[in-house]
Order: sequence, then C-alpha cells, then structure tokens
Amino acid sequence: MNKICIIGVGLIGGSFALGLQKAGKVQAIIGYGRSENNLKIAQELGVIDSYSMNIAEALFGVDMVLIATPVNSFKAVLEMIKPHINNDIIISDVGSTKGSVIAMAKAVFGAMPENFIPAHPIAGKEQSGVTAADGALFNNKRVILTPTENASTQAIVAVSELWESIGAKVEVMSDKKHDDLLAMTSHLPHMLAFSLMDYLMNSDVNALSYAAGGFKDFSRIASSDASMWRDICINNSNEIVKHIEGFQQSLDKLSHLIKDGQAEEIEILFANAKTARDNWLNE
Amino acid sequence: MNKICIIGVGLIGGSFALGLQKAGKVQAIIGYGRSENNLKIAQELGVIDSYSMNIAEALFGVDMVLIATPVNSFKAVLEMIKPHINNDIIISDVGSTKGSVIAMAKAVFGAMPENFIPAHPIAGKEQSGVTAADGALFNNKRVILTPTENASTQAIVAVSELWESIGAKVEVMSDKKHDDLLAMTSHLPHMLAFSLMDYLMNSDVNALSYAAGGFKDFSRIASSDASMWRDICINNSNEIVKHIEGFQQSLDKLSHLIKDGQAEEIEILFANAKTARDNWLNE
Repeated sequence: MNKICIIGVGLIGGSFALGLQKAGKVQAIIGYGRSENNLKIAQELGVIDSYSMNIAEALFGVDMVLIATPVNSFKAVLEMIKPHINNDIIISDVGSTKGSVIAMAKAVFGAMPENFIPAHPIAGKEQSGVTAADGALFNNKRVILTPTENASTQAIVAVSELWESIGAKVEVMSDKKHDDLLAMTSHLPHMLAFSLMDYLMNSDVNALSYAAGGFKDFSRIASSDASMWRDICINNSNEIVKHIEGFQQSLDKLSHLIKDGQAEEIEILFANAKTARDNWLNE
Repeated sequence: MNKICIIGVGLIGGSFALGLQKAGKVQAIIGYGRSENNLKIAQELGVIDSYSMNIAEALFGVDMVLIATPVNSFKAVLEMIKPHINNDIIISDVGSTKGSVIAMAKAVFGAMPENFIPAHPIAGKEQSGVTAADGALFNNKRVILTPTENASTQAIVAVSELWESIGAKVEVMSDKKHDDLLAMTSHLPHMLAFSLMDYLMNSDVNALSYAAGGFKDFSRIASSDASMWRDICINNSNEIVKHIEGFQQSLDKLSHLIKDGQAEEIEILFANAKTARDNWLNE
C-alpha cells in the first residue's frame, strides 16, 4: 500500500503503525486526531510519517483508513470521513465490539460499504497512549476480521496481509460469533472483577486490607478504563447480559454444592477448572 | 523457645521454620510428617534440625507444636497429639479457616485448650512443598491470631513474638471476624474464578483460545489446589455462601444497568471499582 491514514493514534493505532513502519509494508502513514500535541509526539516517535488536523487533507490519496478511536466515537468519525471516502479506499477499525460497529456503519452509509472490513486485534497493555505504542504488540496475537456478506474479497485479503505482516494470526468470523466469544472470555471476566470490587466496597471497605497476592492478579482488570468498558457494555449488551446470566447459574450450582456440603462434587468442579486453565496455558 | 515441633513440613510450615532458623529465635526445630523422604529433604535444606516419624518422640520436651497440615486432617492430628501434650505446651496452626479449627479442637479436647492459639498467615506462593519454603515468605505479611476468650495471654504473646521475629504483622481478632473477612477477600474470588472456568468449559470449550492476557491474571487462582479449596469450602461454608449470595446481588445490579443501557451509572460503578483497587494497591 502507498498510504494509510490512522484516525486516533493511541496505543492500538500507534502500535499498528509502528509495526507497519518496521515491516516496511506501507510507503506513508498519516495520522489524524483531535490533539495536535499527541500527533506531534507520534511523529517524533516515528509512529507516523506526517499528520493533519484536517480530515480532507488526512484522507487525500490514501489506500486505507484505520479507525482506532474509542468505539463510542465511531459514528461521529464515520460521518466525518464519509464525504472524503470513495469506493477504492479500504476502511477498517480496531474496535472491541463488532456488531455495533457494523450497525453504525450501516446507519451512516445506508448500507455496509464493501470495502469496510471490521477488525479486532486481541492484544493490549495496561498502559495507554501513543508513548506505549509497540510495533511488536500484535506479534503472534489473534486479529479477528468480521466482514459482512457483501465485503470485497480483495479488501479482506489486503487487511489480512497488513496484520500478518506485523506478526498477527488473522481469523475471519461473523460479527455475532465475535461478540459472543469476546463477551465470554473478556467482557464477562471484567464484569466479575468490577462487580467484586463494587461488592467489597459496599460490604466492608476495610476488608480489602486483608487481601493477598491472589487478589491482586484477580482484580487487575478492575483497574481498566471505566469509559472504555462503559462503551463495551453499551455496544455488546445482549451478549454480556446473556453470559452474566449463564455464569450466575454456574455460581448458583457451586453455592448449592457448598451449602449441601457436597465435598466430592466440589473437588471435581475445582479440579476440572484447574485442568481447563492449565491446558489453556499450555496451548 | 528451646524446641518447636512442626507437624507437616510443607511450604508454610517449612517457611515458618526457615524464618525462625534465620532469626535464631529457637534452639531446635523438629519435624513430624507422614513422608520420611520429605522430612529428610527438609533436614538437608536446613529447614528443620531433626525429625521423627514417632509423634511421642517428636513432641518430647517441646515448648510449642505448630500444625501445618491441610485443615481437613486437623481432627486426626489433634487426636494424635492429645496424649502427648501437657498444659505447658503451646499449640498453634496455620489453617486458612479458623472457626472450624476451634470447633475441631473443642471436639477433641472437650474444651478449647488455653494454650491453643489459632493462627492464619496471609501469605503463600503458587508452588507448594518444602522445596519452595522461603524464610522471608511472611516478611511484612499479615498473620491473624484468633484466640478464644479463655486463651492464655502468655501464649498469645509467645506466638505473636515468633511471627514478628520473622517479619510478620500480627493482628488479633475473633475467629468469626477472620472467617468473614477471608470469605470476602480470598474465598469469594476463588469461587468466582473456579465458576468462570466451569461456565466457559460448559458453554464453549474453544472459547478459551480467544482469551487474552487479562484472562490469564484473572483466572490464575483457578489453578489453585482443588482438595485444599474443597476443604476451605467445607470448613467455611456459611460465610462463603453468604458472600456468594451478596456478590450475586451486586452482579445482578450491574446486569440490570447493562440491560437498561444506563451508561452513566455503569461508568460510575466501574470508575469507583477502579479507584478502590488503585487505592488498595497504593496502601
């Protein structure tokens, strides 16, 4: 590709750009964002080659635009880029919910553009911002593409190749499947961690001072960004609620085993849980 | 003290012994256990000075006996030591539930011995066994003593001083308070982690392959020892069930906020959770 525009040059957008710079896959990467200071830093760090605060200028002559802003801003971003996009420009994003992104794109464009290939790289860091950008962040990590039925095969291939060039393992699935899987493996654990902190604070705020090392790891994801997780909840509410309710049933089952003193059943449940996790770690 | 007997020379008993050896607080530490091989290793590592497979011999002339076996074996251990104990010997333990230990002691001795000072060091490691023993394991960690009302002040002071000599921060509270606090800050998180693995396994076993770094930390405690956690559930069932049910109400509240799209309320809940955790980390 000759030229890519990254809208939102933070941790994810910046790491994507930096990886591509190192892979030498793109001639020029131009940044767009609301903070000129941030774009200047990104340019100084070699993450982007140039930047513009003017969207028409930022998109001029690009082969692809990657939206890497918080999902909540997507609709506004899509409306902003719409007048400056033609059918030859590939659109992609890195949002952590995909059904909502497709719904917003349909709302803005009337129908899903053939060249819009939604993507979600499953990787991150506790730090945020372009100063934390890392060209190797997606190395050996999964990136899920959720193209709609009318998507251009050429665009799917082009987006796949970009991610693969920076080491990612690309997989294609429906947005529905993606949102279900992520609700289970990411959104549900976050809800449990946030809820646990909420429960402890409301039960006995001093209890926390007796928490030990295991609690530190378990609660780490409760230190995640509140507004980002609010957006994920709003954008994947059905799947999240479904899996919270499913989880409640599993927890009820365990609670009843404990209440009834079913020692053997409890041990089997714990041993299976341990085996499943240990197997996952060794995958 | 002149002589201490450690029953069960594993990670916790071994670390206690090793700390005391380094602090030079005890003349002689003798080990007792079921596996002679384990005791030999403990002796070679300098954790214990000597050992015996004969309980009468192991307890001969000791000032204190520390029970560091799994809680489930306590009743058998107490019955075993009873004939060889007199009123001058301090008894203590390191079990992670305390009400049940006191109940077992009352059952075996008829009443709680004045010199029995139940203790729970809140520290651990993922590894187990005497080869993982670490004399600094309890440094700056909390140790909770839960003496009964008839407990000897002299015995409380003696046990406190031993723990303090290896760097622990000793605190005294009722067994009821201890079991409540631990159910909240340790047992409940473990139940959530085990239940989450149980739920995911039963929903979609392949989902796990999409889990990322946050999941690894969150689920770490689900790799804990199944039989140890079975025993904790059996021995602290009322408190654990109470806090599971309390947590379920918090989770229900969040689930309803998500279902109703209450973005602002969701963000406040998450932000408060994050603040509580961040404050705890900075304590």
